[in-house]
Amino acid sequence: MPAKSERLTYRDAGVDIDAGNEVVERIRTAVQKTHGPQVLPESHGAFGGFFRLFPKGLFAESFKDPVLVGATDGVGTKLKIAFDTGRFDTVGIDLVAMCVNDLIVGGARPLFFLDYIGTGIVEPETLEAVVEGIAEGCLQSRCALLGGETAELPGFYKKGEFDLAGFSVGLVERSRIIDGKKVKAGDYLIGLPSSGLHSNGFSLVRKALLDGRGKRALKANVAELGKTLGEELLTPTRIYVQAILAVLEKYPAKRPIRAMAHITGGGLVENVPRVLPEDCDAVFERRSWDVPPIFDMVAKAGNVERAEMDRVFNQGLGMVLVVAPKFVDKIVALLDEEGYSPKVVGEIRAGAQRVKIR
Amino acid sequence: MPAKSERLTYRDAGVDIDAGNEVVERIRTAVQKTHGPQVLPESHGAFGGFFRLFPKGLFAESFKDPVLVGATDGVGTKLKIAFDTGRFDTVGIDLVAMCVNDLIVGGARPLFFLDYIGTGIVEPETLEAVVEGIAEGCLQSRCALLGGETAELPGFYKKGEFDLAGFSVGLVERSRIIDGKKVKAGDYLIGLPSSGLHSNGFSLVRKALLDGRGKRALKANVAELGKTLGEELLTPTRIYVQAILAVLEKYPAKRPIRAMAHITGGGLVENVPRVLPEDCDAVFERRSWDVPPIFDMVAKAGNVERAEMDRVFNQGLGMVLVVAPKFVDKIVALLDEEGYSPKVVGEIRAGAQRVKIR
Repeated sequence: MPAKSERLTYRDAGVDIDAGNEVVERIRTAVQKTHGPQVLPESHGAFGGFFRLFPKGLFAESFKDPVLVGATDGVGTKLKIAFDTGRFDTVGIDLVAMCVNDLIVGGARPLFFLDYIGTGIVEPETLEAVVEGIAEGCLQSRCALLGGETAELPGFYKKGEFDLAGFSVGLVERSRIIDGKKVKAGDYLIGLPSSGLHSNGFSLVRKALLDGRGKRALKANVAELGKTLGEELLTPTRIYVQAILAVLEKYPAKRPIRAMAHITGGGLVENVPRVLPEDCDAVFERRSWDVPPIFDMVAKAGNVERAEMDRVFNQGLGMVLVVAPKFVDKIVALLDEEGYSPKVVGEIRAGAQRVKIR
Repeated sequence: MPAKSERLTYRDAGVDIDAGNEVVERIRTAVQKTHGPQVLPESHGAFGGFFRLFPKGLFAESFKDPVLVGATDGVGTKLKIAFDTGRFDTVGIDLVAMCVNDLIVGGARPLFFLDYIGTGIVEPETLEAVVEGIAEGCLQSRCALLGGETAELPGFYKKGEFDLAGFSVGLVERSRIIDGKKVKAGDYLIGLPSSGLHSNGFSLVRKALLDGRGKRALKANVAELGKTLGEELLTPTRIYVQAILAVLEKYPAKRPIRAMAHITGGGLVENVPRVLPEDCDAVFERRSWDVPPIFDMVAKAGNVERAEMDRVFNQGLGMVLVVAPKFVDKIVALLDEEGYSPKVVGEIRAGAQRVKIR
């Protein structure tokens, strides 16, 4: 309890309302770039953001039984790499990617995104860079940054540190939900390359590559990567929305994609079974895709067994599609045109909802 | 970098996947209680949660131009009170309240909620209590707990600490959005009592009431409160959804509520102007409602000036409605029936988008 002579204000208690307002002003431009006609002007300064679901003439008529899909995720300890390098413009892309990639695997088009930033001391430049990254992620996934909360929690986070949580909502016609129920033996597995580690396994990555060497190691150029370790580790998670929407829009009636899995924590081994029927296995041919060198570096430096690597990391594939045989060539060609370098990486066989990597 | 003889697994790096899975199992029952027919079975184990927007025959026909409303918020440093008392079943209610109260002020019915829990070490019992609170908040606001993420971030949070972020989506017909545009001089202000401090201003509260005394002060019985200080401070934020929906449902065509403000950080002074037209003031009569004793305790202990108290705290009113004169008596009666103890606390006058408390 302070002495009577002290006059406590909210600022004394560690919360700077004016600094918070400054951040709001700085990020306004980045946020508004993501706003199409569906974001209503009522949103500005309001308690919530207003998003018009079916703008006249756009696509209302194509929905008989619209289903919303909600997903939430964070960036995890990849944030520590941003803290240690002082580079903050990429983790926002990761945040959006982790959420919207979870929507698109269900066949849902991302509509909007909201962010939560928990922080100790508001540093306007840092938060501006974070939100610019989030806005960039929203542009890449064609969704609106509808709102956000920057929570100043003195004493929760170390100086210069923060946590991020992302939330996104997508829309899909019920009959077009992609859930893996129609996957059959003989279907092909198409893999889309990851941009590297994405946003999982960083506690292990940091222990393997950085333990005891701290920030210096991140600045060092690594010949086999062709860049600094910090640059490699901060490479943003690839957003697959544009790739998948291109396929879904090409086939408005047929359903060539039978399942999709976003390869996050748990790797191929734990994520692909989430969309497999009970009587199917997914069999991957390890030689059929390239594993970026960073994975080998982590495995060697940490002496991590391959089974553990497979269980924690994407190992080079950020998204896996299960595709009916007769569509495989066309879909590979389409994804190639879109610049996603697809590879046929295996097939579905009769089995027991397991993943095998041969 | 670990020695070659060490074999790193994800568990060694501080992330316990099995403990995470245990939590998922424990919270399943609480979560499923919030699931009505709109939550599709496809949601279980999927990458995102699927929410059917217009179940046949329910209310599809009443929406010509549906608008989604998104809101995100946290609980702030009120969490520290949970850490210090070891009681974790109430902060989840706060989390939902902070979000859904932001939806309802726009006239939107909450549809679903997602939570993000950032934590260092997963303690299953603690997280179970938190999620049970979140589920309770969802039941109170008639929305589904559609999904969530528990992020284990070794080294981010102190042992036993965590942060919470909430995200909710509501639905409103565009022509029935409540945004304050029709507020006129002569309208009445109806206030709904808060349950206490709700979830704002806790950095100041803790500095004023707890500084240097820590956990002991929270256990002490306080005569003027009739309970321990810890119990008072952890009282969950009141959820006003049921109250407001009762009014909106009573008047499906007329629009008796012209504006609403959820009184959060910034108090009456900063939140009410967000829904005032430029040429109107909101004039509150301070004697017209009861200020719970906790506010006076904070003011006295911290020697906080009244203007600062008004700027930080709800001062006893958690929700303010601006109502057309001819509906005031009926709406007060209806809110009273619902158990929310409404009070006429002031009126709208010609002015300049300010709040005056006399």
